[in-house]
Parts: sequence; C-alpha cells; structure tokens
Amino acid sequence: MIIDIHGHYTTAPKALETWRNRQIAGITNPVEMPKASELRISDDELRESIESNQLRLMRERGLDLTIFSPRASFMAHHIGDFQVSSTWAAICNELCYRVSRLFPNHFTPAAMLPQSPGVDPATCVRELVKCVEDFGNVAINLNPDPSGGRWNSPPLSDRYWYPIYEKMVEYDIPAMIHVSTSCNPCFHTTGAHYLNADTTAFMQCLTSDLFKDLPTLRFIIPHGGGAVPYHWGRFRGLAQEMKKPLLKDHLLNNIFFDTCVYHQPGIDLLTHVIPVDNILFASEMIGAVRGIDPETGHSYDDTRRYIEAAHVDPEQRHRIYEVNARRVYPRLDAALQAKGR
Amino acid sequence: MIIDIHGHYTTAPKALETWRNRQIAGITNPVEMPKASELRISDDELRESIESNQLRLMRERGLDLTIFSPRASFMAHHIGDFQVSSTWAAICNELCYRVSRLFPNHFTPAAMLPQSPGVDPATCVRELVKCVEDFGNVAINLNPDPSGGRWNSPPLSDRYWYPIYEKMVEYDIPAMIHVSTSCNPCFHTTGAHYLNADTTAFMQCLTSDLFKDLPTLRFIIPHGGGAVPYHWGRFRGLAQEMKKPLLKDHLLNNIFFDTCVYHQPGIDLLTHVIPVDNILFASEMIGAVRGIDPETGHSYDDTRRYIEAAHVDPEQRHRIYEVNARRVYPRLDAALQAKGR
Repeated sequence: MIIDIHGHYTTAPKALETWRNRQIAGITNPVEMPKASELRISDDELRESIESNQLRLMRERGLDLTIFSPRASFMAHHIGDFQVSSTWAAICNELCYRVSRLFPNHFTPAAMLPQSPGVDPATCVRELVKCVEDFGNVAINLNPDPSGGRWNSPPLSDRYWYPIYEKMVEYDIPAMIHVSTSCNPCFHTTGAHYLNADTTAFMQCLTSDLFKDLPTLRFIIPHGGGAVPYHWGRFRGLAQEMKKPLLKDHLLNNIFFDTCVYHQPGIDLLTHVIPVDNILFASEMIGAVRGIDPETGHSYDDTRRYIEAAHVDPEQRHRIYEVNARRVYPRLDAALQAKGR
Repeated sequence: MIIDIHGHYTTAPKALETWRNRQIAGITNPVEMPKASELRISDDELRESIESNQLRLMRERGLDLTIFSPRASFMAHHIGDFQVSSTWAAICNELCYRVSRLFPNHFTPAAMLPQSPGVDPATCVRELVKCVEDFGNVAINLNPDPSGGRWNSPPLSDRYWYPIYEKMVEYDIPAMIHVSTSCNPCFHTTGAHYLNADTTAFMQCLTSDLFKDLPTLRFIIPHGGGAVPYHWGRFRGLAQEMKKPLLKDHLLNNIFFDTCVYHQPGIDLLTHVIPVDNILFASEMIGAVRGIDPETGHSYDDTRRYIEAAHVDPEQRHRIYEVNARRVYPRLDAALQAKGR
C-alpha cells in the first residue's frame, strides 16, 4: 500500500470560499457574518471535487490512501479572532471528515486547529478532541506562526504549546508542523514561508529538550524538511557545538520528514542523508506546484516517480510508502487493521 | 588560485566587543557613549588575530585569498539608530580594510552597511562610497532584514533599495545578501534565520522583475542558497506557474550561490543542480560551525574537501574556485591583475 501523508483539500467546491469571504467581510461588518449552517455543499459536489482531482491523480499514480487535511493556505489563522478561526476550522474539518466517509478506502482525515494569534493554544483542544473522537482524525496540523509571517508566538519548545502536546500524547497522534498564508510581503507563501517554517521548527526542536520532556511527541516536518536535509552537516555541527546528543538520538525518534521535494536530486539527497525510518511518502497533491516539469515530462508533484528512482531497496521503499506511516500514525494503522488492510 | 568569497572577521581582538558593549550601553545612557577614537587596536593585535586563525586555516586548506567582511552576527543593525549603526559600520569596515593592508595577498575587503530599521537605504551610500573608493572594497553585504527577525522592510525587489543598487551598478560590485543576529526568539541565528533569509531573498527576486530593471545587478546568496538548490524543482515549478522565464534566464545571470554547505551530499546536490558558473567557492570560516565532523574527521567548514570530491571536472572546479569570483567581483579581478595575479 502507498500512503500519501500530506494532502490538503485544495479543490473544495467554490461555495466554501464564498462562505469564507462572507465570514471575512463579517469581521468588520457583523450584519454580513454568515452562519455555519448557511454553507451547503452536497455529497455529490464533494464527490465530484475529489473524483476529478485528487482521486483521479491517486489512481494515475498508484497511490492508495491520503491523509487529508483542510487547505493549508486557507487556514489563515491571522484572520479575525478565535471565534472566527473556531467556526472556520470546524467547517473545514467537517468537510474533510465527509470526504473520508465518502471515500473511506482512500482518505483519512487530519485536523486543522482553530488557532488565533495571541490566544492560548488550550482553546484548540476542544476541536482536536472532536476531530479525533467523533471524526476519526489520525493527526493534526499545527501552525507554529498563526500570525502569518510575523513570528510572534513562542517557539514550539515553549510550554505555551503544551496543552496541545498533552492531548497529542494522550491520543498518540502526530502533528504536521505547517504554516498558512503569509501576510508578510517579505515572504512568498509557498516559496519562502513554508520552507522557512520547516527549517525554523526543526531548529526550535534542536535547541531545546522538548522530546526529553515529551518522549512520545511526534512532529512531521513537511516539504522534505525545508532546508534541513540539504544542510544536515550544518545542523549536526550546530548540535555538536551546543553539546546536544547526535541528531539521530536527539531528534530522530520524534521528527519525521515528508517527501514533498519536487525533483529527483532533492529526493536523492533526502534518502541519502536522512535515515529511511524518518522519511514518509507524500506529495502535497494538488498543491503549490501543479505544472509539468519540462525536464521530465511529468508533474513536479508526482513524487512517487522520484521515490521509485531513488537508491533505496524495495524493503526501504516499502517503509517510506507504508510502514513508517503506520508507525508514526498509530490511529491510522489501527483503522486500517480494523478493515483487514 | 582558490578564492574564498565568504569570510567574516569573527576573531577580532576583544577590544572591539568591549567598545561595542559600551556603545550599546551609551544608547540608553549617553554619558557612557564611547568615541570611535577610544577603540585602539594595534597592527600587531590584528596580525595575531588573523595569523593564528583565518590565515592559519587558509594555509592548512590551501586557500589563497578571502573576501573579508565584518562579522555578520555582530552587524546587529537592529541595535540603536542610524548614528549607532553608522559609527559601528565605519569601525568594523576600517578593521577589515586594515587587515587587507596587513595581508594584501590574502584578504580583500567587503563592506557592511550602516543599515538601520526603517531608515532610508540612501543613508548607506556614503559608507559604501568610502569603502569602495578609499578602502578598495570589492563588494558589500546587504541585510534584507535590518530588524533582526521581524522582517518589516520591503522585499529586495522594492524601489526602497534602489539607492544602494544604483551605486552597486555604478561601481560594478555585487552584494552578498546576509542577515545578522536574530532577536526574534523563534529564529535561531545561524540555524534558521540565515538559511531562511537566503530562501526568502531568492523568492523575492523570483517573483519580481528586478533584474529586468537592473540587468547588471548581482547578488550572492550565501549558505549554499538556503533551501533553494534542494528545492530547485519547486522553484522551477513556481516560476513556471507565474509565467516567469526559465530560472536560468530569469535569475541566473544575476544570482550566485556560495559553497557554505557543510557536508558532502549537500555540495553534491549543489553542483549537480546549479550551473557551475553560478557557484562560488566559500567556507565562511571561522564561523557558525567550527567543530570536527566525527563522520569524516575533518572540519565541517573545510568546504574545499567537498569541492575536491564533487563530480565536477578540473576545469569546472577552477571556475568554482577562481574564474567565477573574478567575473562576479570585477574589482577583485582588476586588483589581482594589477598585481600580475
């Protein structure tokens, strides 16, 4: 089985964006604020949006299952207050849940959180609990910078984040560390902010003893780990100067990288440098980079091709495709086992 | 000849730091503000600080010449106002100039600028002119985020920066895009902020038409280009979606990457993905990562070893070591030619 651990619902029916725009207008003009119940999307519309997009490409590419979360750039935690984020997260999570019910063999949901800048992360726990207990979510996406490019929250190692971590540990679910749209004109969202956040999060973990404190906490750093594998020597050297343990002992029981790196040399470096048990297959399809690479004639985000061509043996490839995901997402494994998969 | 285009004066005599601490104290308590003339460092002290450090390692590693600029993390443009930065930049630039006079065959200076958050970059031109005309500087270091991790200056593509660019074009000098210390607790200075700035700067150029406007402007993106070469497919794909030209036409006449990547697989990726004419040898020695890599038994920042082992032929290696630097830094080439080198 091939599990893609990083998919977002980027193709939701237009009604979702229309509702969100009304919600944003309602922040300054409360009479325009729509009710959640005013958003109506039928199962047929959901089915169509998935079958003609993600599921079509999964079939073409031979991918079996996607861990599916709300569109990352649309989380936009910086917009409005906690109440705005709370309503928006509930709506987006419900849509991913419905997709997972319509296509139970192909999609398993992961939740966005109703984060809001400056608001205690404990406020996110209620949505997290609902998504795990009622909706069968197997993971969360945690935004280390809900400000959208101002970076004014404490680092991930701060006890500020512990209310979320404690629930993650209790449920044994990992978090993908994933920012949303940048509203800082310095940072292009998918070309700079995403990759910077990946590198930043890794370094926040490296300088801390977070995983000594919470040894079962698990983070996925997406987009191939930002700059981290390319600069693995730099990070090993920095850890050494700080008298930290070797990175494999200090971080690699808790941190995992996905394979959202859109060319062969990048994947070759990733699989060469990072232990295979810390690499999880993903494509972030349909996402930031949707075109065809003229150098290969294939989609940039068809990451399976790179993994197939990488210098790993079949057993290692199987770990990247399936075994690691089942280990890092135990609730996914349990759900699959319950179905005899 | 082997030219290291990225060295900072990280080993300046202690008196420099003491003076700076007095200057910082003087910001809040003006009676403590020292005069520039109160800093006294003898030629012997300068000689000793270089001979026992950078020059010793250059000899050990077979490096001939270093483009030498003030310590990047000490630029700290966020401290104080323009006057504070102006005095500090003048002092630091003069020290690098003196080093270049003491060791004319081994060090050529590059200037830091007296940037200050929110202050018009035109105020930096006077120091730039002095450093080029009087001190023989062949390049500048330009900080895209003088706030130190708040990222509240306009992107590098903004006309805000043009007063500096116009002087660069007039003098035909390149800028290394290099941030300084992060005062944002989210960003570790050398493990996150530096690499993020590299990626950010590249993407600011990619989304703009800066080099169409100023076709001879040249930037060096240090630290191997941050996350850029590892994600080269992502950047190619993003440019394609934005209907920009191919990156080689859009950016690679103007953007160059150094080789400050501290392990073999990273250098292998860099030399595989980026055209050899856009790669300039550098080590940033003595800098962020000073230890011995237990996996190789050699210094992490002994980047010559990686270039020697990379899959490039001798002619390409010669370009990385010397030819490209002479082309990208024409004032360096002119100075070398004047000496018959």
